[in-house]
Amino acid sequence: MKNIKVGLLGFGTIGTGVVKVIQQNCGILASRLGATIELARIADLDTTTDRGVELSPGVLTDDAQGLLNDPGIQVVVELIGGYEPARTFVLQAIRNGKHVVTANKALLAKHGDEIFAAAEVAGVDVMFEAAVGGGIPIISAIKENLGANNFYAFYGILNGTCNYILTEMDEEGKDFSDVLDEAQKKGYAEADPTFDVEGVDTAHKLALLLSLCFGTKVDYDQIYTEGISNITALDIEYARDFGYKLKLLAIGKRDGDKIEARVHPTMIPEDYPLAAINGVFNTVRLVGDFSGPVMLSGYGAGMNATASAVMGDVLAVARDLQTDCGSRMPALGCPQSELLPLSIKPMEQIVTHYYLRFNVKDQPGVLAKIAGVLGEHEISIESMVQPHRHEAEAVPIVFMTHAAEERNVNAALAEINKMDVIRDETLLIRVEDHLE
Amino acid sequence: MKNIKVGLLGFGTIGTGVVKVIQQNCGILASRLGATIELARIADLDTTTDRGVELSPGVLTDDAQGLLNDPGIQVVVELIGGYEPARTFVLQAIRNGKHVVTANKALLAKHGDEIFAAAEVAGVDVMFEAAVGGGIPIISAIKENLGANNFYAFYGILNGTCNYILTEMDEEGKDFSDVLDEAQKKGYAEADPTFDVEGVDTAHKLALLLSLCFGTKVDYDQIYTEGISNITALDIEYARDFGYKLKLLAIGKRDGDKIEARVHPTMIPEDYPLAAINGVFNTVRLVGDFSGPVMLSGYGAGMNATASAVMGDVLAVARDLQTDCGSRMPALGCPQSELLPLSIKPMEQIVTHYYLRFNVKDQPGVLAKIAGVLGEHEISIESMVQPHRHEAEAVPIVFMTHAAEERNVNAALAEINKMDVIRDETLLIRVEDHLE
Repeated sequence: MKNIKVGLLGFGTIGTGVVKVIQQNCGILASRLGATIELARIADLDTTTDRGVELSPGVLTDDAQGLLNDPGIQVVVELIGGYEPARTFVLQAIRNGKHVVTANKALLAKHGDEIFAAAEVAGVDVMFEAAVGGGIPIISAIKENLGANNFYAFYGILNGTCNYILTEMDEEGKDFSDVLDEAQKKGYAEADPTFDVEGVDTAHKLALLLSLCFGTKVDYDQIYTEGISNITALDIEYARDFGYKLKLLAIGKRDGDKIEARVHPTMIPEDYPLAAINGVFNTVRLVGDFSGPVMLSGYGAGMNATASAVMGDVLAVARDLQTDCGSRMPALGCPQSELLPLSIKPMEQIVTHYYLRFNVKDQPGVLAKIAGVLGEHEISIESMVQPHRHEAEAVPIVFMTHAAEERNVNAALAEINKMDVIRDETLLIRVEDHLE
Repeated sequence: MKNIKVGLLGFGTIGTGVVKVIQQNCGILASRLGATIELARIADLDTTTDRGVELSPGVLTDDAQGLLNDPGIQVVVELIGGYEPARTFVLQAIRNGKHVVTANKALLAKHGDEIFAAAEVAGVDVMFEAAVGGGIPIISAIKENLGANNFYAFYGILNGTCNYILTEMDEEGKDFSDVLDEAQKKGYAEADPTFDVEGVDTAHKLALLLSLCFGTKVDYDQIYTEGISNITALDIEYARDFGYKLKLLAIGKRDGDKIEARVHPTMIPEDYPLAAINGVFNTVRLVGDFSGPVMLSGYGAGMNATASAVMGDVLAVARDLQTDCGSRMPALGCPQSELLPLSIKPMEQIVTHYYLRFNVKDQPGVLAKIAGVLGEHEISIESMVQPHRHEAEAVPIVFMTHAAEERNVNAALAEINKMDVIRDETLLIRVEDHLE
C-alpha cells in the first residue's frame, strides 16, 4: 500500500483536529484511499504545550524549513493563519513541488492571485475547502458538481460568531453588547471580536466565493463591508413584525460584466430556509442557471468540522498523487488565464429594499416631512410603523421601502438627517426580499 | 484545446436538459475545463420528436450499438432509466473502456455490485451524482469532501412528489388523494404514482447512500419501505399539535456491524431545519464524527437540476481524461474489496419513538385498557390526546410514546387490535425525536 507523507505547518486548534482525524479514522482513510496517510512532520514554534494527542518522536519540530525542504513530504497543510509567514511558506512549498491545503481565508483573499498563479506554474494543487464555511463542502460544489452552471447569485451566512449573536439577540431580546460579552465567555467570540463582528472575516470568504462562482479576480479592498455592531434588539423585533429575520449576509450577484459584492446586516423573509439557520451554523445558498437554488449548511468553524474539511482536501490531493496526474484542477476551478475582468459595482448603484429607522422628535407632521423627502428621491414606501408613542424625547419611525437605488436612498437620508426633527443618525438596513 | 466526445443514451427530459447545458454553457465549460465537450452522438428509439433543441445532422441515431462501439466516444451518459436495456448498455460501455455517467438509481440500487465491479476491472469511472437528490451534490460530498469522516447517520427527504404532497396536506389541510390528483394534473406526480408514493424511489436512493456512507454492499430487498398513502390530514394536524412535521424520510444509521435502513413517514421536531424543506425540494442531513451535521438541499428532480448534476459528473470525468489518470476513484469511494459486510438490522430491533392513533368506540375505560397493554409491553407514554369527543361511532385516541423497541410495539398493537373496542386498524408513525 502506497504511503502519502503530509507535513503540517501550525499546531493550534485546527492542526490538533487534523492530527485527531488522521489518528482516529486511519482505517477509514486507508480503505477509501487504498493508501496510508502519514503525518510525517508538524512544525510549530511551540513544541512543548500538550495538545492532548500523542505523536511519534521527532514528528513535532520548530523547523518549518526542514519540513518545506523534506523531499519525502508531498502535501503541506498550512494552518498558521494570517499573512506572514504563511504566505512565504505556502509559496515555498509550491515552488518545491508540494501540493498545498490551507484553511487560511485571510491569506487567500489578499494574496490568492500570487499563490494560485505560482501553483499553476508549478503544476501543484492548492485546496482550501476549510477556508469558507468550515465543514460545508461549498468550494468543491462550486468548482466541480455545480461547475456546469452559470451562477446568478449566492447568499452566505459565513461567520458563526455573528450568527450566534444575532440568534441570541432575536431569541432572548438582548442587546448586542450583552450577547457579545456572553459569547466571549463561552468561547464563541474572540477577546478582540472586531474581525468577526465588523464583517472582515465574512468579506474574506466572500472574496473567495466570488472568484469561484464568477471566475474572476476580486479586489478584496473594494468589497463593501458593514458589521453588526450597530444593530439593536429593537431592530430585530421590528424585523420580526415585518416578517423578516436579520442575518449578516455575504452577497454575490452577477450583472453582466459587473458583480455585486457586499457584506452587511440583511433582513430576509422569515419563511426562507436561510432564515432558519441559527446559532453557530453557517450556510450558503447558491443559484445556478440549471441547478436552481442549492443550499448547504453545517458548522462553520471549530476544531472538528474544520479538520474534516482539511482532510477532505488531503484525500483529494492524495488521489491525485496516487494516479500521478499532477494538478488535476486549478485552484479556482478554471485557469488564471480564463479569469474574467469583472468589476465590483459601486454600492451607490445597488438596487434593493430598505429598512429605515428614524429617531425623531415626537411632534405632528414629522412623518409627512420624511415621507415627502423619500418621495422626492423616487423612494416609495411599502409599509411604515411608528411603534411606541410615549413621552420620550425621541421616538422611532420605521419605513420599509420598495426597491430603490442606494444612491437615491443616500441622498434622501443626507437631506432628512439635516432636519431639526431628527434626533440621532438614521439606521439603514438592507432587505433582500426575493433571494434568486 | 482538447475535445472530449460524449455519447448520450436516452433523449427524454433529462437528456434534453443535458443537451441544453452543453449548448447554453459551452463557454463556461470550456473555460473551466480547458477543453471542449462535444456531444458526438445521441441514441434513442425515437428520432423524430421535436425536443426543442437543435442538433447537428447525424448526431441523433436509433443505433445504440454504434454509439457504444464508437472508439472516439470516451464518456457514455446513460439516461434511459429502468433495468434493461440500461444494464446491458452500461456494462458494454464499461467493457469498451468508456467512463459512464448515469442518473439511474433503480439500476444502481439493484445491479450496482455488478456494474461497480466491472468498472473496477476495466479501470473506468462510474459517476451517478444525479441518481440521488437531483441537483444536490450529496454523493460527491460523501465520497470526497466528507470522506475523512466516520458517518453515524443520515436522514433524507429524497422524493419531491411525496414532499410536495405532504407539504400541501399540511398547508391546505387536504387529504392525500385530493392532493395526489392535483399533483398529477400539475405534472408533479406520475399517472401511476406507486413508485413515488409507496417509497420505492426513496428506497433506491437510500440503498446508494448506505453503500456510500457506510462502505458496504446493500441488499436492496431488505430495506424496510413504507409510503405515505395511509397518512391522513388529521395525522398531520395532530403532528403539528405535538410540535412535529411529517416527512417521508430515508434513514440510515450505523450501529456496530449493523445498519438501520428504512423508508417511512416520520415525524420530526418542527424547529429542525429539515422540517422547513417544503414542496418539491429534497434534502439530506448527514452526520459525520468530525464534520458534525451537514445539510444539503435543492431541487431533487426536474430537467434542469438533474442535467446540472449529470454535467458535473461529465466535468469530473473530463478532468480525469485530460490528465490521463484512468479511474481516479472507485464508484463508491472505496474499492469493492474494502466494502464491509454490514447487515441490515431487522425492523423488530429498531428503537424509536412512536405516534399511535387508535380508532376506538367512544366509551369509558378504553383509554385505560390501551394504556395498560402498552405498559405491559414496556412502552411508556410521553403524551396523549383524545382530540374530538363527539357522537361518531369511532373516535381517535393518539399516544406519543417514549423510546421503545419496535418488537414490543408490534406485540402490543397485535393485542390491542384484537380488542372489541377497536374499530379500525391502528395507525403507527415513527417519530425521530433527536436527529443525531
